[in-house]
Amino acid sequence: MSLQQLAPDHVRAIAPYQPGKPIAELAREMNLDPARIIKLASNENPLGMSPLARAAVERTLAESARYPDGNGFELKARIAQKFGVAPECIVLGNGSNDVLELIARAFLTPADSSVYSQYAFAVYPLVTQACGAGGIEVRAQDYGHDLAAMREAIRPGTKIVWIANPNNPTGTLARPGDLVEFLEGCPQDVLVVLDEAYTEYLPRERRSDSLHWLSRFPNLIVVRTFSKAYGLAGLRVGFGLASPAVADILNRVRQPFNVNLLAQVAACAALDDSVFLADSVRLNNDGMQQVTSALVRLGLSFIPSVANFVTFHCGDAPALNRFMLERGVIVRPLAGYGMPDSLRVSIGLPDENARFIAVLEEALGD
Amino acid sequence: MSLQQLAPDHVRAIAPYQPGKPIAELAREMNLDPARIIKLASNENPLGMSPLARAAVERTLAESARYPDGNGFELKARIAQKFGVAPECIVLGNGSNDVLELIARAFLTPADSSVYSQYAFAVYPLVTQACGAGGIEVRAQDYGHDLAAMREAIRPGTKIVWIANPNNPTGTLARPGDLVEFLEGCPQDVLVVLDEAYTEYLPRERRSDSLHWLSRFPNLIVVRTFSKAYGLAGLRVGFGLASPAVADILNRVRQPFNVNLLAQVAACAALDDSVFLADSVRLNNDGMQQVTSALVRLGLSFIPSVANFVTFHCGDAPALNRFMLERGVIVRPLAGYGMPDSLRVSIGLPDENARFIAVLEEALGD
Repeated sequence: MSLQQLAPDHVRAIAPYQPGKPIAELAREMNLDPARIIKLASNENPLGMSPLARAAVERTLAESARYPDGNGFELKARIAQKFGVAPECIVLGNGSNDVLELIARAFLTPADSSVYSQYAFAVYPLVTQACGAGGIEVRAQDYGHDLAAMREAIRPGTKIVWIANPNNPTGTLARPGDLVEFLEGCPQDVLVVLDEAYTEYLPRERRSDSLHWLSRFPNLIVVRTFSKAYGLAGLRVGFGLASPAVADILNRVRQPFNVNLLAQVAACAALDDSVFLADSVRLNNDGMQQVTSALVRLGLSFIPSVANFVTFHCGDAPALNRFMLERGVIVRPLAGYGMPDSLRVSIGLPDENARFIAVLEEALGD
Repeated sequence: MSLQQLAPDHVRAIAPYQPGKPIAELAREMNLDPARIIKLASNENPLGMSPLARAAVERTLAESARYPDGNGFELKARIAQKFGVAPECIVLGNGSNDVLELIARAFLTPADSSVYSQYAFAVYPLVTQACGAGGIEVRAQDYGHDLAAMREAIRPGTKIVWIANPNNPTGTLARPGDLVEFLEGCPQDVLVVLDEAYTEYLPRERRSDSLHWLSRFPNLIVVRTFSKAYGLAGLRVGFGLASPAVADILNRVRQPFNVNLLAQVAACAALDDSVFLADSVRLNNDGMQQVTSALVRLGLSFIPSVANFVTFHCGDAPALNRFMLERGVIVRPLAGYGMPDSLRVSIGLPDENARFIAVLEEALGD
């Protein structure tokens, strides 16, 4: 008997998440100079990390042999203050990916199901399947979430509905009124996960008032990350906000030291750095304009995006992806999302965007 | 219906791991000056982190907005080289705690069971229970693992046997010959997890040749950490070594970015810093002598330990623990381990050990 057969079927069937290709990996594979490679594949912050966060990490480095605070006291206090929630409503994660996984593991069994949209973030079906639960995929509407259809898709045994807002990889946004209507119509014993990883990029008037909804809907979990606008993807920190009863359950399945020491102090400092956050958003707005106007000029259609990336349609995407990789430009293929004709490009620094556009022009001119 | 009832019984029943009390927490609770508090509660390296590891972190800080390499290419290559294993035998963890949890989650279902020793590391029963599996606790022999009895305790449905060597919190060590005999007698479809978190503290002649056993016993998983002798507890990195088939399954349940960027580069550098490792071991040997000779002098019995901590018996341990906390000395109560009359103290710097001894003398003189 093979030792793999000791694992349950649903574990053996897991196909791990495929991240954007790291620069070092492409350099090895194609024998390129890493300094000449640009990565626009993982929706990272091209400005790097906040200077305040960096200073906090440097101040704390000498403590690295000490375990982090397993309760994340300081970071929870800072999040509670900034977002107007109680500390007992917070669950910290090793990136928001960890929070998403904690939600699945705490609530899903092989007898249950979860609902998510076609083209939604790949982690929702993945963590559902990893628990042996059933996934209910609802057809997208204009690449975005069809909330009415998602409401209809809820069945007995459905425990979670996942909503990415804005959604990755499509960059679409649900309207706040539609979300409230969804929450009002959703059974109270179904958890609604509102994944707002990209919310900081939205203009204020388009943001959902989701944190205020928490007190009205105890089945709501709002998930945020420090990996995008806050520029801390490498350090791994995110958080979930929920009613105290739900947060308590999530904290039970959380590993005691899931968020490392440096990530905790960096996240605290990043929350204070409103200048860096504003700079990051401004850079993204300008870059989005730069990239999308080029796509228009080149006659490539794309999905209008409110986040820090844009998905465009290009016919033979694998060939274009290969062409770009050979020239040191990493973007994200979307075949795994059922969009084999599209690529997703993250908004970078102005010269990174220009280089992407130049290589794209070169490819189309061939 | 309460939302907590959506979670399965075995999740609701989880009682999270109780870590050593952080210095900042004690300072808040007792209004003490944090600079006057010493923590000898979590078996951390009192020398801090390796200077080479620190330099590697500083060199990499500017990359913190980039996701870590989800495959850990460089770190796996370095581990493979240093320990003579193939990269496909390695699973990286967010601390070895993560590896232990991955093992449980990959293989244990409510229909299964795992075997561990009385007084063994608390995470084994915890991760077993969190999967809804049954725990089989085997009575200890002189505070150490009774391997023969553990072999006998294996039942149909037992998928994992956990062996901590050295064991935390008792500091006991199984003899290599007994371990080989155990592996030879163990059914080949039962995974044996050999948790060697403290192995670096052992004199060479007492270490198990466990890495060579991997090719002979495909059901063996060796787990190591960078949190102890390597001084990287705050950064969170550990690893498991197993047959490729088992490592493959573990990597399927692993989160894509479980080990952060700075932890990966720090661990690579720490593996190169043999000077720091030797200094850490020497300091620990001297400190163990300092602490245990004081325990003998004070008439307190203790469990002879080969690791970087020692557990001693002291009657009213909660009262002594309270006395020490009030004086800014944090040690570890062991009531949760079924040892309500004992405390565990980590070996610190010479002056930290001296302060622990002085407070202990003060308490006994009362």
